[in-house]
Amino acid sequence: MKLDFRILKQQWNARVWEFLLNGVTVQTPCFMPVGTKATVKGLLLDMLRDPKYLGTQSPFKLILWNTYHLYLRPGEQLIKKAGGLHKFMHREDGLILTDSGWFQVFSLWLWDKTKGGKSLVKLMDHWVEFRSIHDGSKHMFTPSGVVDIQTDLGSDIMMMLDVCSPVDNITKDEVARQMSITHKWAQQAYEYFKPRYEDARWVLFPIVQWWLYDDLRALSAQTLGAYATDGIAIWWLSVWETKSEMKRVLENTLPHLPKDKPRYLMGVGTPEDIEMAIWQGVDMFDCVLPTRLGRHGTAFGPHWQIKLSNAQYREDFSSLTDTCQCHTCTHYTRAYLHHLVRENEMLWGTLLSLHNIAYLHKQLEDWRNNMLAS
Amino acid sequence: MKLDFRILKQQWNARVWEFLLNGVTVQTPCFMPVGTKATVKGLLLDMLRDPKYLGTQSPFKLILWNTYHLYLRPGEQLIKKAGGLHKFMHREDGLILTDSGWFQVFSLWLWDKTKGGKSLVKLMDHWVEFRSIHDGSKHMFTPSGVVDIQTDLGSDIMMMLDVCSPVDNITKDEVARQMSITHKWAQQAYEYFKPRYEDARWVLFPIVQWWLYDDLRALSAQTLGAYATDGIAIWWLSVWETKSEMKRVLENTLPHLPKDKPRYLMGVGTPEDIEMAIWQGVDMFDCVLPTRLGRHGTAFGPHWQIKLSNAQYREDFSSLTDTCQCHTCTHYTRAYLHHLVRENEMLWGTLLSLHNIAYLHKQLEDWRNNMLAS
Repeated sequence: MKLDFRILKQQWNARVWEFLLNGVTVQTPCFMPVGTKATVKGLLLDMLRDPKYLGTQSPFKLILWNTYHLYLRPGEQLIKKAGGLHKFMHREDGLILTDSGWFQVFSLWLWDKTKGGKSLVKLMDHWVEFRSIHDGSKHMFTPSGVVDIQTDLGSDIMMMLDVCSPVDNITKDEVARQMSITHKWAQQAYEYFKPRYEDARWVLFPIVQWWLYDDLRALSAQTLGAYATDGIAIWWLSVWETKSEMKRVLENTLPHLPKDKPRYLMGVGTPEDIEMAIWQGVDMFDCVLPTRLGRHGTAFGPHWQIKLSNAQYREDFSSLTDTCQCHTCTHYTRAYLHHLVRENEMLWGTLLSLHNIAYLHKQLEDWRNNMLAS
Repeated sequence: MKLDFRILKQQWNARVWEFLLNGVTVQTPCFMPVGTKATVKGLLLDMLRDPKYLGTQSPFKLILWNTYHLYLRPGEQLIKKAGGLHKFMHREDGLILTDSGWFQVFSLWLWDKTKGGKSLVKLMDHWVEFRSIHDGSKHMFTPSGVVDIQTDLGSDIMMMLDVCSPVDNITKDEVARQMSITHKWAQQAYEYFKPRYEDARWVLFPIVQWWLYDDLRALSAQTLGAYATDGIAIWWLSVWETKSEMKRVLENTLPHLPKDKPRYLMGVGTPEDIEMAIWQGVDMFDCVLPTRLGRHGTAFGPHWQIKLSNAQYREDFSSLTDTCQCHTCTHYTRAYLHHLVRENEMLWGTLLSLHNIAYLHKQLEDWRNNMLAS
């Protein structure tokens, strides 16, 4: 295990841990902002490393980037020439996590199934074939190829190529078949990275999928646990399932995951879902929701979400929230943010995205501090 | 004179001066970014007060906001309730200059003359009537009303209501008539503000117009000079005239302006025009160009402008410029900025707008430092 992971506090299933990788120490549970195409939309990375902007004690140590988008544009070879993502994006002092690329491939697949037409994605036993969203050109991802792409990007925490089965119009047998492909791919990725592992700066997580099938998830967790040298991810939740289904699946899956390695719940990013999942024993989260909501004029608040375009905020000279100490909450009123949204001024996207990710960051920091003090 | 203005260096017509207003010291010549609708598009005001982001010794002490836009939305009464623009926009520690509102009224007028249709603007002897760009509602600006609006906004340096005549399809006689209206308005504004002047925090500049008519400009400069208690503005240059016409008009107008008060050339904002004008004795500049160019993917550079969408920058891993030390030039390559522009990522607008205004800020700071050291 390369991630130097140590326990700071454990209470029932919940835990405060700390890991060290490539000279960077990360306390978990933690939330990672998403920097889709080599930028966290609307934000300077300097804001995410500056407690003055975040209103927290700590900066963001971990940020996620999308392998699929970066592979297509500007291409991992260009980023490699630039000295890797860390240098390309001015992310010299923090860790970079990249996903497997599958979810974006899957979105195309879903689109394809829904809209019909020429097939854009072909799932084979040893690779997935897909077409670029930009120019329709043909590409393929293999288990080892995706390791290479993420290596060229300069990732610190990489994901193994997986299949994320659609939810509708699919039999359980077909889901099970796709699961076995994922398991085979994980084994191939593992065998490919193992001889390189000692010298590399990265670590590699497998991903447990299979939506609401608790039995498949349990089997997959056990199988993939063998390849989880430094951590393991859980995905295909927080999509269409209900809150109670999500809770049930986590309760039934987490006991089958390795206990002594970080557990990363992909794509989860509301304050409520995070609160529920950390008590189940999840350590890491990422989601585009905070920045996406921000760009659409909506802010996280202690009493649900605040939609700033509403006329009720026109003369509301109070802070966005009382609890958050981010730059937005400290210096601007709801009336000002309302004005920006109504006037379509791009600054609102920056101010609200900053607030939303700072809000989750502080929620987790406060939770860790409370746990440590308890 | 309320602006405490003192000479630091004078060389021929060029000058380095310093003024103190409301506790803020400003060195001139200086450039002011434009914050149209209560925001400098795409930038946090904290970046403009932070030498780390600007790569200069000094922050921006002066920023311009548009009276017309703020009057219509969110309205000067709302801004007054919010505690004034300084508080509303998180601009507590710097000065705010507001324009007279005429130019935006004029843009409508021009549109009206070009496109025909129902009249949107009516110029009367004692006021100008116009319709809102938002909902067509009828409004009017008077010389004293515009002082009141800017007072409610909480401006530090205000402009007197003026008429800015169109360039085409107008006789010189009609221009002269509009000039005499401006002179009458300036007198009215002067008589209105005089009894309030001692207690107020603001100062008020008249504006010399009349495009390429040197004789009208000279007459207007002499007439309006009488109302220029703290400074005077020059406008209606840098629009359609040639570089040599601009130089000629400045040469012929500036000698008629008060020598011991700041001279503010409105709407000028290319490095070349600024360089020419400071040698003529201009002290203040503003322009939307740096932020507008930035949002359109173009950066100021020492060898003309850099259009980042060009394919030649795809693998150009050099800094945006060698001379500027702004956040963008220090931390990002042309290849990264090219990638952002091609991917339509909003961060490019922020990074390039920041660079462009920092570039002008540094140009003027270097020029002042060289003058002071010579």
